[in-house]
Amino acid sequence: MKACVLYSGGKDSSLMAVILQKLGYSVELVTVNFGLLPSWRAAAESASKLGFQHRILEVEKTVIQEGVDFILDDGFPNNGIDYIHRKALEIASKSYPVIADGTRRDDRVPKLDSSEIRSLEDLKSVEYLTLAGFGHKTINKLSERLFTVKKDLINIENNSDYEIEIRHLIDQLRGEKTASRIFPEHMQSRVIGWKEK
Amino acid sequence: MKACVLYSGGKDSSLMAVILQKLGYSVELVTVNFGLLPSWRAAAESASKLGFQHRILEVEKTVIQEGVDFILDDGFPNNGIDYIHRKALEIASKSYPVIADGTRRDDRVPKLDSSEIRSLEDLKSVEYLTLAGFGHKTINKLSERLFTVKKDLINIENNSDYEIEIRHLIDQLRGEKTASRIFPEHMQSRVIGWKEK
Repeated sequence: MKACVLYSGGKDSSLMAVILQKLGYSVELVTVNFGLLPSWRAAAESASKLGFQHRILEVEKTVIQEGVDFILDDGFPNNGIDYIHRKALEIASKSYPVIADGTRRDDRVPKLDSSEIRSLEDLKSVEYLTLAGFGHKTINKLSERLFTVKKDLINIENNSDYEIEIRHLIDQLRGEKTASRIFPEHMQSRVIGWKEK
Repeated sequence: MKACVLYSGGKDSSLMAVILQKLGYSVELVTVNFGLLPSWRAAAESASKLGFQHRILEVEKTVIQEGVDFILDDGFPNNGIDYIHRKALEIASKSYPVIADGTRRDDRVPKLDSSEIRSLEDLKSVEYLTLAGFGHKTINKLSERLFTVKKDLINIENNSDYEIEIRHLIDQLRGEKTASRIFPEHMQSRVIGWKEK
């Protein structure tokens, strides 16, 4: 059965892809893009290094605009990112019977609560899978065993999260450096291949 | 790395075992027993059919007695089963760096909430993994693809859950048929081998 993993090139979504492939799913890695920046490139490269199919899921600009509205109104990113992620899941569920992401047990954002998950699965006739059964300690260890990882301050070369385009749009709307007041800079790791045996 | 899966012979814990093995863990399936009945036999047979190592984890009778006290006081099984499961996890965490069970996203009992999980992991220096990222629909489909399953009313031949010994102890304490007033009879599926290719 076909399964899509919403894919940023990071450890979590890479591990989810590996688990689903090992369980026999035909996995496609899918990176959301709003057409503002080619921020999918890092994920496409990670996917190719791991030998997975990769696709860009073009989502209309209004979705990121609405998400950024939430973020600017709130002064913090959580609700806006949640909004964008829910929309991405809904759109992906039109093309795949199984959709997944790398949400861990200890992740806060983006994360659907159990009633949101039930409603997504029922309304869209889709199965939605996450890494909610695994904590960060376990995922870090598994990632260390499986993947070669590169760590860097978040930037377009190293990450394909929504955050790259969100930052870009915020700075465009409110002037340079606005985004870095709302999103503190942080390190990001990207999977750049399998671990050498 | 060694990992223990608390194992009943059912689909959920069998799937957890398969996922961990595919991720490279050296998996041991462990069935809790309180010495009241040889209710571990069904799980041992399932484990052997799947080719996994199996061990009985003998837990002292006071644990099931305390659990049954909760159940008789409450008139329903949830808190008592939760209590027994937490104790089982604590005991297993003395012998394994990674402990797991087949708790799904939509399971209610036994289930640890996120602060209980954090405290278990921190206090016992253990990683605790579940199937909380997967719903019942997905697990049923995966189980159908992977396993041969036998469905029956719950009984000692077909199941190694805590429930078998709990029912036995309740009937011993309060007279025959008391347990079936507290636990409604229900169907239970047991994994009896890999799916024929």
